[in-house]
Amino acid sequence: MSEQKLPTDLPLLKDLNIGNITENVNAINSRCEDARMKFLFEKLVTHLHNFARETRLSIPEWAAALRFLVEVGQISNDVRHEFILLSDVLGLSLLVDAIDHPKPPNTTEGTVLGPFHTTDAQHVESGEQVSFDPNGEPLFVLCFIKDTNGRPIPNVCIDVWETDSKGFYDVQYENRSSPDGRAILTSDQDGMFAFKAIVPVPYPIPSDGPVGKLLEKLNRHCYRPSHMHFMFKKQGYSQLITALYLRNDPYETSDAVFGVKESLIVDLHQVSDVEGLREKYDLASDMKLLEYEFVLVTDEESDCLREEEARRQAMKEGANIKVVNGLLISK
Amino acid sequence: MSEQKLPTDLPLLKDLNIGNITENVNAINSRCEDARMKFLFEKLVTHLHNFARETRLSIPEWAAALRFLVEVGQISNDVRHEFILLSDVLGLSLLVDAIDHPKPPNTTEGTVLGPFHTTDAQHVESGEQVSFDPNGEPLFVLCFIKDTNGRPIPNVCIDVWETDSKGFYDVQYENRSSPDGRAILTSDQDGMFAFKAIVPVPYPIPSDGPVGKLLEKLNRHCYRPSHMHFMFKKQGYSQLITALYLRNDPYETSDAVFGVKESLIVDLHQVSDVEGLREKYDLASDMKLLEYEFVLVTDEESDCLREEEARRQAMKEGANIKVVNGLLISK
Repeated sequence: MSEQKLPTDLPLLKDLNIGNITENVNAINSRCEDARMKFLFEKLVTHLHNFARETRLSIPEWAAALRFLVEVGQISNDVRHEFILLSDVLGLSLLVDAIDHPKPPNTTEGTVLGPFHTTDAQHVESGEQVSFDPNGEPLFVLCFIKDTNGRPIPNVCIDVWETDSKGFYDVQYENRSSPDGRAILTSDQDGMFAFKAIVPVPYPIPSDGPVGKLLEKLNRHCYRPSHMHFMFKKQGYSQLITALYLRNDPYETSDAVFGVKESLIVDLHQVSDVEGLREKYDLASDMKLLEYEFVLVTDEESDCLREEEARRQAMKEGANIKVVNGLLISK
Repeated sequence: MSEQKLPTDLPLLKDLNIGNITENVNAINSRCEDARMKFLFEKLVTHLHNFARETRLSIPEWAAALRFLVEVGQISNDVRHEFILLSDVLGLSLLVDAIDHPKPPNTTEGTVLGPFHTTDAQHVESGEQVSFDPNGEPLFVLCFIKDTNGRPIPNVCIDVWETDSKGFYDVQYENRSSPDGRAILTSDQDGMFAFKAIVPVPYPIPSDGPVGKLLEKLNRHCYRPSHMHFMFKKQGYSQLITALYLRNDPYETSDAVFGVKESLIVDLHQVSDVEGLREKYDLASDMKLLEYEFVLVTDEESDCLREEEARRQAMKEGANIKVVNGLLISK
């Protein structure tokens, strides 16, 4: 990179100290031409500096934090997302999902995506097998998808994923050759989709990396309660990332990643409770059943709500903030 | 990791939302047995969440930030410290140094360490060569170290490092076999140390990685003004990390890492200006000279000041904060 001709309107960055560093970093960053990025960095730098000032962060603590972040980056790869995991255990993932996917009452709540979603799951037909672990307790999953007016939504693309009976996702095995415990389905004309899975089990999030060590130092356990992940996509509808949790799991109220919501907790029943189900899908009589009705929100409903909540936040932030495309920026 | 017996006093982490997630993450983290770590995480989580709430951070923005952090970690290695560089360009490094190394008036100010210090520099005797770049403009550096009472401090261990004439540190060359442009010296009975170097040049911080790309998006240049780094260590004295800058450098007031302080800016003179210097060190008559007097602070003076400033910050934070060993913790 060759020397550049300097613009003449740069702020004078000299003799910066505890008191004036923040305004000056923000001044030089304010030349950013992307209004949203400029706003994000102003807030980021302000919070980062206030954190350091309020705690009087020491050099050894700063150095330890940077070493930790390097480790989190270095253990990450295509199938291990340690930074998502870090975001999860700090409650940031749950918070950002709640902010970006506002839900009207009586629609299905979202929850954390987690670090184990992949994009290589295979499409299966309704009623087919998703988990092939012979040691898992068989579970039939029968779901319906509706809109906020109670009408079924056909042709929704549904991603489902769960661990095996030992509590590990397929990607956590080094010798993984093809997806297991995950699939993509499509809802039919009644908004219905169904598949054969196994009863979810509680499991520890990966505890052999820097995030696991952090939880240990924080004196926190690393368990997630039994759950199954779902992701719903259809043109015109707000993407829903959620999960269903089993009632009375030992970790129901202490999920390491803060994902449990009462509305997402389910009781398991028997397939024999639903007339004709065993025959239709050729199921064993003692097979457990998970039934759930998901309610999706349209893009329009979601955008409208997001815009409304953004305006409310902008009001709180004061006169210098405005909302463009549902996002806050400085005026 | 086997399932653990759960403590009975865990907070109930269920139905967490934008409004209550922060207090609940802090509640579960408050079981941490290290009082300082507990305090740091309470502040960290609060600022992180407030940043997301105030900006209404979107999922794509969150995902982009995590991808960026992964890249910063992955490009880092023993000689490339991209997270330090990130901290530098956000002004955090300058701030933390100022917090942790408070300086009484009339003592030498500190500045950013930067990502290019190494621990493999060789010891050289006073007056010896530190930079071997034949294309550099020769410079003789003559310094004295004093305490706050004006008394010389002997036997200080001094680390010096600078770029070559092209603006690159030795570690930025792939084929680096041994240190160049860096050395360790010891001050003599008069607190004096001297060495042969080259006149520093302005240089871009590494711009081929994620931090360089970030600066570009922020519409910031990536240059540092001409400077030479110094680090001083002696038992009983507060470690001083600083640098000297050349007056009238084009980047004097727009340093990409915010390090320039008026008190650290120097004018170069000629070695012939100091009587007997040329003869003593066998210097060419037209050689440039950098002279400076560093004033170090004792550990006692520094600890006292740090304690005082910590107490002042604790007062601001309110009744729940106390100071232990100069660091803030919750009562």
